[in-house]
Amino acid sequence: MSVEHKDMANAIRALSMDAVEQAKSGHVGLPLGMADIATILWTHYLKHDPADPAWPDRDRFVLSAGHGSMLIYSLLHLTGYDSVSREDIRNFRQLGSKTPGHPENFVTPGVETTTGPLGQGIATAVGMAIAERHLNARFGDDLVDHKTWVVAGDGCLMEGVSQEAITLAGHMKLNKLIVLFDDNAVTIDGSTDLSDNTDQCKRFEAAGWATKKIDGHNTEEIYEALEWAQKQDKPVMVACKTIIGYGAPTLAGTGKAHGGPYGADEVAGIRKNIGWDHPPFEIPEDIEHAWKREGAHAQPLHAEWSSRLAASKDKAAFEKAIAGEIGDISAVVSAHKKAVVEGGESKATRQWSGAVLEELTKAVPEMVGGSADLTGSNNTKTKATEPMTPANWGGRYIHYGVREHGMAAAMNGMSLHKGIIPYSGTFLVFADYSRAAIRLGALMGAQVVHVMTHDSIGLGEDGPTHQPVEQVASLRAMPNMLVFRPADGVETAECWELALKNQTGPSTIALTRQGVASVRTEHVEENLSARGGYVLSPAKGDEKVVLIATGSEVGIAVEAQAALEAKGIGARVVSMPCMELFEAQDAAYQSRTLGGELPKVAVEAGVRFGWDRWIGHDGGFVGMDSFGASAPYKDLYNKFGITTDGVVAAAEALV
Amino acid sequence: MSVEHKDMANAIRALSMDAVEQAKSGHVGLPLGMADIATILWTHYLKHDPADPAWPDRDRFVLSAGHGSMLIYSLLHLTGYDSVSREDIRNFRQLGSKTPGHPENFVTPGVETTTGPLGQGIATAVGMAIAERHLNARFGDDLVDHKTWVVAGDGCLMEGVSQEAITLAGHMKLNKLIVLFDDNAVTIDGSTDLSDNTDQCKRFEAAGWATKKIDGHNTEEIYEALEWAQKQDKPVMVACKTIIGYGAPTLAGTGKAHGGPYGADEVAGIRKNIGWDHPPFEIPEDIEHAWKREGAHAQPLHAEWSSRLAASKDKAAFEKAIAGEIGDISAVVSAHKKAVVEGGESKATRQWSGAVLEELTKAVPEMVGGSADLTGSNNTKTKATEPMTPANWGGRYIHYGVREHGMAAAMNGMSLHKGIIPYSGTFLVFADYSRAAIRLGALMGAQVVHVMTHDSIGLGEDGPTHQPVEQVASLRAMPNMLVFRPADGVETAECWELALKNQTGPSTIALTRQGVASVRTEHVEENLSARGGYVLSPAKGDEKVVLIATGSEVGIAVEAQAALEAKGIGARVVSMPCMELFEAQDAAYQSRTLGGELPKVAVEAGVRFGWDRWIGHDGGFVGMDSFGASAPYKDLYNKFGITTDGVVAAAEALV
Repeated sequence: MSVEHKDMANAIRALSMDAVEQAKSGHVGLPLGMADIATILWTHYLKHDPADPAWPDRDRFVLSAGHGSMLIYSLLHLTGYDSVSREDIRNFRQLGSKTPGHPENFVTPGVETTTGPLGQGIATAVGMAIAERHLNARFGDDLVDHKTWVVAGDGCLMEGVSQEAITLAGHMKLNKLIVLFDDNAVTIDGSTDLSDNTDQCKRFEAAGWATKKIDGHNTEEIYEALEWAQKQDKPVMVACKTIIGYGAPTLAGTGKAHGGPYGADEVAGIRKNIGWDHPPFEIPEDIEHAWKREGAHAQPLHAEWSSRLAASKDKAAFEKAIAGEIGDISAVVSAHKKAVVEGGESKATRQWSGAVLEELTKAVPEMVGGSADLTGSNNTKTKATEPMTPANWGGRYIHYGVREHGMAAAMNGMSLHKGIIPYSGTFLVFADYSRAAIRLGALMGAQVVHVMTHDSIGLGEDGPTHQPVEQVASLRAMPNMLVFRPADGVETAECWELALKNQTGPSTIALTRQGVASVRTEHVEENLSARGGYVLSPAKGDEKVVLIATGSEVGIAVEAQAALEAKGIGARVVSMPCMELFEAQDAAYQSRTLGGELPKVAVEAGVRFGWDRWIGHDGGFVGMDSFGASAPYKDLYNKFGITTDGVVAAAEALV
Repeated sequence: MSVEHKDMANAIRALSMDAVEQAKSGHVGLPLGMADIATILWTHYLKHDPADPAWPDRDRFVLSAGHGSMLIYSLLHLTGYDSVSREDIRNFRQLGSKTPGHPENFVTPGVETTTGPLGQGIATAVGMAIAERHLNARFGDDLVDHKTWVVAGDGCLMEGVSQEAITLAGHMKLNKLIVLFDDNAVTIDGSTDLSDNTDQCKRFEAAGWATKKIDGHNTEEIYEALEWAQKQDKPVMVACKTIIGYGAPTLAGTGKAHGGPYGADEVAGIRKNIGWDHPPFEIPEDIEHAWKREGAHAQPLHAEWSSRLAASKDKAAFEKAIAGEIGDISAVVSAHKKAVVEGGESKATRQWSGAVLEELTKAVPEMVGGSADLTGSNNTKTKATEPMTPANWGGRYIHYGVREHGMAAAMNGMSLHKGIIPYSGTFLVFADYSRAAIRLGALMGAQVVHVMTHDSIGLGEDGPTHQPVEQVASLRAMPNMLVFRPADGVETAECWELALKNQTGPSTIALTRQGVASVRTEHVEENLSARGGYVLSPAKGDEKVVLIATGSEVGIAVEAQAALEAKGIGARVVSMPCMELFEAQDAAYQSRTLGGELPKVAVEAGVRFGWDRWIGHDGGFVGMDSFGASAPYKDLYNKFGITTDGVVAAAEALV
């Protein structure tokens, strides 16, 4: 006897409410409301293989409303993924379980991306859908042809990042992106009309999407909508009218249904209302079997795909791309560094970045670049990277528009999808716009390179709104983030090499607008930046002070070194392009490099915050202790005292 | 003979292009394109008085596309504001001028808000428009009845924050908010269709706005639209089709027209095309006179308003509100602290915050609260603050929806408007969403209080996506921001008092989700938090180590102190609720408080970054060096070693 849809959906509901009751925390409102849709999607349409969560051509499923994590844990468990056992569901939200409060891709195979911060899921999914189209262009329908499905809630759609994602997706005509909007009209504070009256379908249509409204509990409408959604020539949003906390006698449809355990009485009431009389955490065998069977509906497609891959001439290239192997770029970087030193030019590090990117994008076909409408300023566009458009999906450069946040999230999505190493540019100060997505990349360990130019008051006339002073520090504070601030052409190439080799997290490369002196003219055969900090120029004569600098200020430190030596004060210059990598060195190297107990002066056109670790409370600091100002950059360096004289004075005060 | 519209608009164009040529930098594309609209607005509709930029009932004009700053400098100069002289225009973008690269309200009277980071202006304007409606409800049409005008560009509308602003404005039916969209179809990278195809009118309509499209160079259509715009019962967006770089022979209408000096030939071509044959920076007398005369069109309204104010029974209250005088809240805070200590309860600091807010919102009618859909979690709603809605503008609580960024920007707008002291809540980790607006508030010196609850792994099961570990550090890195992390009920009240007295910038109050021990039971008559850090508990016996802690970790430090003393190791506990205020103390106080050279251990459930300033490179640190995890919070404190034993071990390692 076949198992009814209702029973299968109720299995999700039961596991979800039992887990939340057991944990005494969590959000059961969404799983109760979205169970009908999720059941049909996962058993009939979602192309996935519970036996292989890493199948490259699987459909991606993104629970943007991540608080409803029990929905995805129930689905993974019921369809037979190894990653979520019944025991894991009993241990929902407990230490070390595979079922954390919000879905974490690095904990639970089958979870495509970490969600919870609202709006991130839908924006990340846009990146996944872009990656699919790009890799399809590169490898063909045989190897890459899948969809990206998103479940998003009211909260996701209120977040600004969703607008950036939606308009980018509409612009790019991502027709294999399908958003299922859990239109339950409730947020934490209560009914959505406490804070919002947006006509969401109209809004998506304005961005070039196809939309449809359905009753999210009517199976016929669900089937019809999911069929329809796959046939559009643009991205699709289906507004699914659901009842949050479906079945709950007193809470269904209310703000209180959003989260928290409902309590024994309410849960008993749900059991009665939905017709589920099985004990907590128990699923009748026939329902369990039906789930396993129907959850495996796409396994034959996986087998066919594997055959195609085995026969494909692109097999090696495809597997290399998916594995994220970048090949040996050392030779490319070394040759470039040698040429830089021989050329002897002074340029802005953003220009040096552009120059080495010309080489790297030729050598690494997985690199896909872009900019948030600052292409000419960020120097991220290279000859090898043609614009990616619906007419040319094989292009490797994305005009992201003025959408820093959506861009950073989309890059996370490309990285998680695999097959692409995304990089993109904006001004460093606008890291503040994208920080929530940057952080999520760091948490997920996603390889993404954030090119951040115009990295200090050195950008000059645009003034304090555009001048980062605390952004380098604030990014250094973030776990699992490498922040690079190279001094010249050689270090810029080295930092790019390190960023490409940093495959377990994001890298930020802070670059100047203004020209900088060439300071690293020796030992270019070695990547000295790899140690984070190194002695760029040892003291001549009696060493009394250590100057530590980064980026555009290394040249100033070198000038100050000469001025100090003229006064009989020996000084070394330490260049510190990456504080995190320096922190990772052993104490002996750190101490040797920083001259042991010698007094120290740090020079960086940013705030002191964080520097005392290396210079001490009484160390000298030449940098910023306020916001900047609008003027030509040399005037600003003088105004704020970030000058050779300033460094000399700070050093003299210590010796 | 009357001066023609064309000549007046051309005066803006001429000053703008001459200034940009002189500075060799800046953005003249927008002023050239928007000159027609701006001329008509400022001479016929904008209610302003060049003689008094601080007139409280003036219309607000916000140039959201702040890069076009020469538009507003030209307008201020031409209509006769003292703040912008011809000399200032010649000194555009130079050090110390009144004409910085982007408009800065703290530099140039007549500039309402600092813009440049795209989307911030429109979002800030929403706050101004809210403030107007609220103060209108409080003081009546006689004293408060004005409009908020915004000029926004494509870039502003691509930024996600604009969506939060637009949907909030639509929800609140802010019918006195009028956005003039500079629909020039060009961004820096080129034509907007490189990155966007949004139907902006449809998008605004979906959010409940009235919209209209006009030719932005057709004076008749402009007059008609501005008349129409003032008669709607909802916010209004007028899409003004303009030509960026209007008049430029080769650049008009192209991406290159956006910014940078056009060069002598192009500028000569503009002069010819627009019919302006006067030398650089020179305006014919008749045109100058016409501008002065018509710029003063609203001065009679100001005089009438002043009479009404003089006669108003609300004069004193109104002036007090506009001046931001909060009266003496010390007594309220003191009484509250006394009651807290007498009560002896253990609560979460978010609850303590809610409790003191009950008192403060009664005492300070200018306080307007809110939350980004976390009202019950943030404890920001009090009895004195009823929801503010179109039906009850006098309400003092805003359900901001899931819009952290728009909320922070709107708070900036309320603060700049004057008459309101805004505070609002979200989770601390979501400071990452609103950071760009928080920073702008710090730059502008706007009094805003960011209540940030759930301030560490102490939030427990929601996991690492929701657990701030680096946010406190990243906010401490920001200039002109006070970051408070109070330990208990007494300190929470003290920090609120300090935040309300901090009228020259934003304050962030980081608060726990979990209950904390009451640690401050003595000296409650004094606000000890005002010094940033203080000795909470001196060592008993032979002092060998100093424990410095903040927030929820102060209780752990106090326990560790007892455990250490039981082992014969004397330890003091320093509570440091505000690192910035401690930094502001003199060196003697700092050293005395921190026990001079005694070894130190800091305890904070966040990253170490920044702490070495107080504990030294070799100091002990008990906190986080990675992202968190999902589990009940006590399990997490154990997992990450933030425990009494952990502190004891760290201290023992140093003595």
